[in-house]
Amino acid sequence: MATALTPHLTEQALDAFRSALTPDAVIAGDDELRAFRDPFAFATWDDYTASAVLMPETVEEIQAIVRIANERAVPLWTHSTGMNNGYGGPAPRLNGSVLVSLRKMNRVLEIDEDSAYAVVEPGVRWFDLYEALRASGSRLMVSVPDLGWGSVVGNALENGATYLPTGSDMAAACGMEIVLPSGELLRTGMGAMPGNRAWHVYKRSLGPSLDTLFMQSNFGIVTKMGVWLMPMPECYMPLWLRVWRDDDLPALIETLRTLMLERTIENVPQIWNTIATASVLSSRSAWYEGDEPIPDARIDEIARELEVGRWQMRFALYGDEAVVDHRFRKVKEAFERIPGAEVWGSKHTPDAFADLENPHERVQAGVPNLDINQMTGWYGGEEGGHIGFSPVARLTGPDAVALRDLIRGLVEREARLDYAAVLIPTNARSFIHVTMVIFDTRNEAEVRRAYDASRLLVRECATHGYGEYRAHLDFMDLAAEQYGYGDRAYMRFVETIKDAVDPNGILSPGKQGIWPQSFRDAREQA
Amino acid sequence: MATALTPHLTEQALDAFRSALTPDAVIAGDDELRAFRDPFAFATWDDYTASAVLMPETVEEIQAIVRIANERAVPLWTHSTGMNNGYGGPAPRLNGSVLVSLRKMNRVLEIDEDSAYAVVEPGVRWFDLYEALRASGSRLMVSVPDLGWGSVVGNALENGATYLPTGSDMAAACGMEIVLPSGELLRTGMGAMPGNRAWHVYKRSLGPSLDTLFMQSNFGIVTKMGVWLMPMPECYMPLWLRVWRDDDLPALIETLRTLMLERTIENVPQIWNTIATASVLSSRSAWYEGDEPIPDARIDEIARELEVGRWQMRFALYGDEAVVDHRFRKVKEAFERIPGAEVWGSKHTPDAFADLENPHERVQAGVPNLDINQMTGWYGGEEGGHIGFSPVARLTGPDAVALRDLIRGLVEREARLDYAAVLIPTNARSFIHVTMVIFDTRNEAEVRRAYDASRLLVRECATHGYGEYRAHLDFMDLAAEQYGYGDRAYMRFVETIKDAVDPNGILSPGKQGIWPQSFRDAREQA
Repeated sequence: MATALTPHLTEQALDAFRSALTPDAVIAGDDELRAFRDPFAFATWDDYTASAVLMPETVEEIQAIVRIANERAVPLWTHSTGMNNGYGGPAPRLNGSVLVSLRKMNRVLEIDEDSAYAVVEPGVRWFDLYEALRASGSRLMVSVPDLGWGSVVGNALENGATYLPTGSDMAAACGMEIVLPSGELLRTGMGAMPGNRAWHVYKRSLGPSLDTLFMQSNFGIVTKMGVWLMPMPECYMPLWLRVWRDDDLPALIETLRTLMLERTIENVPQIWNTIATASVLSSRSAWYEGDEPIPDARIDEIARELEVGRWQMRFALYGDEAVVDHRFRKVKEAFERIPGAEVWGSKHTPDAFADLENPHERVQAGVPNLDINQMTGWYGGEEGGHIGFSPVARLTGPDAVALRDLIRGLVEREARLDYAAVLIPTNARSFIHVTMVIFDTRNEAEVRRAYDASRLLVRECATHGYGEYRAHLDFMDLAAEQYGYGDRAYMRFVETIKDAVDPNGILSPGKQGIWPQSFRDAREQA
Repeated sequence: MATALTPHLTEQALDAFRSALTPDAVIAGDDELRAFRDPFAFATWDDYTASAVLMPETVEEIQAIVRIANERAVPLWTHSTGMNNGYGGPAPRLNGSVLVSLRKMNRVLEIDEDSAYAVVEPGVRWFDLYEALRASGSRLMVSVPDLGWGSVVGNALENGATYLPTGSDMAAACGMEIVLPSGELLRTGMGAMPGNRAWHVYKRSLGPSLDTLFMQSNFGIVTKMGVWLMPMPECYMPLWLRVWRDDDLPALIETLRTLMLERTIENVPQIWNTIATASVLSSRSAWYEGDEPIPDARIDEIARELEVGRWQMRFALYGDEAVVDHRFRKVKEAFERIPGAEVWGSKHTPDAFADLENPHERVQAGVPNLDINQMTGWYGGEEGGHIGFSPVARLTGPDAVALRDLIRGLVEREARLDYAAVLIPTNARSFIHVTMVIFDTRNEAEVRRAYDASRLLVRECATHGYGEYRAHLDFMDLAAEQYGYGDRAYMRFVETIKDAVDPNGILSPGKQGIWPQSFRDAREQA
């Protein structure tokens, strides 16, 4: 028999899954399974491969899957429907796990126009929810991420950013239904009371509140979730800020924090460096021939030629036109105190949102699209890939500069790659530094170098007090190990919960560094 | 030996606590212990009595207490420092528990002016944090509740409401340090990484996020917490809205939700009915002689005489004066579409906040006070008491009317008391209906009737889908039982965690209906 660390999916287990689901809901062919690997890993690497993919359509089918997994000691790995590009795709942490893909659970269950929320299944993509809203004639908008193909639930469960005011501080999710590892069905918050109409409008429970316990964890499979929506404003004004010197960053950040703390800016901005912006608009080879990282002088030239500055921020104002006008004057004056800085934008009414030309402006209007998915062509064109290395920091000038210099130094020295950064202040007090480690997926040495450099980034940033908000499959353990305060008190507490609620350790072993007891024992003996 | 259900504090255990703490930190005299009972329970009732009170001053002393409790099977009950009036005061759920009072852990550990947060110990009162802010010359304000004597941490842990924009959706807490039942020290979120500066500015973890797991639960003792603060605005405008007919409530609620959803109103309003307002300003005997509930015609007269309407809402605007002016015109126009409704208020700059005459206007300016603590004199004057019965509902007109009629009917019929209500929309989509069941604490029959009526309210409201956000000690179990979806899946999940992290069941047994394994077993056998 296979050990816990090298699971083997038996024909009997596969048959049990087949009889619990419809026949075409079980995928076990090698060719078909390749669609579920990390899309950016080098072609011959097979560290994170599913042994089968199950596509349940109902809660009852998920409960059946979980029961079979318990009976036959099959490790599962849950995947909603999105791409998770840069963090390992849908691939399981534990090689040989059975992937539970929720893409067929794709119903928008409810749109409440009065209380401004929707209830969705995990297979609902941003495109789907947007379409459902428009089809129903709703006057509500949904806070979306940059790419519309992802899952509304999956994004929330990974602490993913979205960009409308309702997405600020990742606060849009409210009220979940969850299949526990035991197969039981849990409803969180007010949903634990039969017939309670406040399930998706009030975030707390009587007793401890559990929603965030099921984010970035492996304690259950979320089957329904409420998501708060926003009424369309009278006026929407997407804005751009451009600064020309790399060292304008701290002044930009300090001004931004002040404006966000006082709620003049209410949405989630993004701040792009030149390389990140250029990677969406062009290929590296158009700018530079050398193998070494592009030097600063050349980056300045790219910044001027593309007119994107050394740092460019997208953000937006929403509300009554009089308030938007007042705020535009205020933010323009505040940012343009930075020498050479420019702030500009244009006002729009809701009927124009879907037709905005710039995809960033559509994103901030809640219109999902895929137009920003060009970044990874910087190296390698169509075959480009990237790893997201994404530590959290305080939203202060000194922190932004320290993190920029630390990460740029390591990316350029260790990976010999260009430094592509998108800073995302998910609230007024902190930001996520998304580092795009971009590489050519056909070049094994370059891919290996990018992976190695990312691991080094995890360790080095942690020694300076910066930790990842979300970790790539390949260094989930390493990223989690950095949170070791009090002799690993956090992880030991989480492991205690894991062992209690999933005694057989069937659900997503290794997710975010959380391994069940049997695996921890086996690793210690190994 | 005493059974789990009737603990007995031995002299040996008391001595162990005495040697772990300073001598005057252990209180065991009967007279002194009376200060820690439910202040509104009838004088001879002793269902919830502590056998001793411990007052640690440091984290290490709390760790020592927890270790002794484990060794000697002593049930503890944690109390920060506030009053918890209406919900049982500091008294323990389990008779004979040892109360751990944290009032001597009262240091404001940090005020970060740039990132707008403070870090406090659980004994820090709103008064203390406010004074620390003023003493440091800070330009930050703290979102406070109605009464300033409570604990900043204790309020957050009970899901208590506060009233500034930073208190909206109970979102001000960020990052905790916790002594676990094992005595280990856990830091949540980014705090789990040594030296991470984002502990109190980013709410999530790498992995599951735990802050809300320690709210309304008994999984640990919180020893530090971050609380988000708000920069003082250019202009603060406390506002009042008054409507004259009881049935103006739904129009008020519908208009309010629209204005909150679009973020025109950003703080947490309060909506008082006539009796609730009158109970702060006067005694019942000034208005009515009869024993039966005051009839509607007389309530109308009180409303007119006191000029407080049948419903009166307090709320406020904050921001640049131009924005406040625009919003005032907007909310005034919107609410005054209700026939007879009036909206009024006045603008203030930060230097005037502390001197505002009306205590409600000071509360919404972040200036803590005790002036609103007169409600319980409605019946019984100085000896008046109350129970808070506080279900959650959607913020809709139909829900507000349904809950009003249901609760008023039961309070008047079953308790034969007046219906005093304060509705608190803690976010744009839901509100808490705080029912003040007010009684004369000297009249045992009246107290008993109020308690019995409250239990009936818990059950009856639950059959209509309305559950409490927070439960009085005396019906914590009953309130928790209403959340029984999926064969008690929520409570069984919570109990599973409880048993795993607190195997000896020493920490606050019975808190919010969560009992350790040994107690559950003993009750089943009983």
